Amino acid sequence: MSEGTLAALDIGGTKIAAALADHDGTVLSRGRVPTPAGGGDAVLAAASALLAGLAGPGGLAGRGVRAVGVGAPGVIDPATGHVVSATDVLPGWAGTPVRETLAELTGLPVAVVNDVRAMAYGEARAGAGTGFHRVLHVSVGTGVGGALTTGGDLDHGAHGTAGELAHLLVPERGPVPCGCGRRDHLEAVASGPAIAATGDARRAGALLGRALAGLVAVLDPDAVVIGGGVAQIGPPYLDAVAAAFRDEALPPLRATPIVPARLGTDAPLVGAALLAASAPPAGSAR
Amino acid sequence: MSEGTLAALDIGGTKIAAALADHDGTVLSRGRVPTPAGGGDAVLAAASALLAGLAGPGGLAGRGVRAVGVGAPGVIDPATGHVVSATDVLPGWAGTPVRETLAELTGLPVAVVNDVRAMAYGEARAGAGTGFHRVLHVSVGTGVGGALTTGGDLDHGAHGTAGELAHLLVPERGPVPCGCGRRDHLEAVASGPAIAATGDARRAGALLGRALAGLVAVLDPDAVVIGGGVAQIGPPYLDAVAAAFRDEALPPLRATPIVPARLGTDAPLVGAALLAASAPPAGSAR
Repeated sequence: MSEGTLAALDIGGTKIAAALADHDGTVLSRGRVPTPAGGGDAVLAAASALLAGLAGPGGLAGRGVRAVGVGAPGVIDPATGHVVSATDVLPGWAGTPVRETLAELTGLPVAVVNDVRAMAYGEARAGAGTGFHRVLHVSVGTGVGGALTTGGDLDHGAHGTAGELAHLLVPERGPVPCGCGRRDHLEAVASGPAIAATGDARRAGALLGRALAGLVAVLDPDAVVIGGGVAQIGPPYLDAVAAAFRDEALPPLRATPIVPARLGTDAPLVGAALLAASAPPAGSAR
Repeated sequence: MSEGTLAALDIGGTKIAAALADHDGTVLSRGRVPTPAGGGDAVLAAASALLAGLAGPGGLAGRGVRAVGVGAPGVIDPATGHVVSATDVLPGWAGTPVRETLAELTGLPVAVVNDVRAMAYGEARAGAGTGFHRVLHVSVGTGVGGALTTGGDLDHGAHGTAGELAHLLVPERGPVPCGCGRRDHLEAVASGPAIAATGDARRAGALLGRALAGLVAVLDPDAVVIGGGVAQIGPPYLDAVAAAFRDEALPPLRATPIVPARLGTDAPLVGAALLAASAPPAGSAR
């Protein structure tokens, strides 16, 4: 099962992106459609149609596609592929049996993970995390998310939240509430909306760097990869993160590489495609 | 190598404790001496003499002791058994080649880990963490320390600091500085000296609970074990930790067990004894 074409889906609140990819995650073709209203079934029907369109007349089977990988919002149970919980970024998404439904629609094995995890997996296996054993992946965009990989494998944790760093305490009140409602959480000071509210990306970056110094002592990863829309601001922001990190980290940890993500907006698709390679055979869905 | 008697050392700034233990960590006999001044060599000579005294006339070999486990302050490289760095709790301790020196003094294989890790290992294998896959061990005493175990094995991380949670940011300035000098770190608000300064153990416990809520989302362990001298205050303190944790944790994580350590002051000795069972053969020290 190490060769063959893989299909990938990146499901978001406003758009669904899809790709066909090589066995090593190289994207062969891509497409996108707006995310439809109407809940989980409508979203997955649109996703399946998008894939069918990418595949062309012979369908996914005709293109030799052997599995589908999905990055999707919310807490996903990686064993069942069900959405355990989700914010209102995608109304009607919580509870959706993504794996079963897509397996039925496509006739293929399906692997489903949270979208930040899909990015982390892509970066760990084919991007900025390559060559590092344990990687903390940080995604700064509309929210602040994270994921952990060890030896290139995702670490899900006991309840599927591992890597979720939005709720770390910070010594400052943010201009916007964290997704959970608190103001003294990392997400409230460091997310894209927080930066839009204050206009001060460097300050947000410095707070992220300080929080990472505390967290890196606990996780002691081989590298930290920073991705997401805010990280695409580039050097002034990333330098502020790295400088604050180095200023506050324990001496043995100061040299921990803080590296920018490399796959850009393709990261969730590359990760989802690579995850597809590990999808359990169709029919084994619980 | 699953049977036999094991020797354990718990080296601290004021005293050295030693034990002989069964293969399952049951303590057979124990002793202690004040920690001598004079640096690493003097400390290890005293530790070795203490073990010899416990063993009696036939020596460690005569008692069938097959390995020595050591819990010691500072950052320890578990591969070499050297002290990478240490605070001034034990002057002259940094740089000490603990494993080599004790292997020479006792003629036995020696395993060395940080003292909080020794506690965590003891609790994970023979105490409050038994039966939980991934455990975050928190030790609150003179400082705030921590360690991680997965499947009963210690997680050291890339630089030997994994589990170190003293430096998590908190939204409050502490009455004492963190070991690193900062005031807005967990240790500055939640350590024993911080509680002594404010007299408010519940408030310190609540801040620890809040910080743990943020950290548990990242680690997603199966349980959190709370030990150390401050935790021995008992229910009023531990209830404050647990209540603040539950109030702030993500919904799927609220039921994560927060359990008190069970082995008390024996924890580092039990852990060190059990670690001795995995000590590399004498002579393999790098």
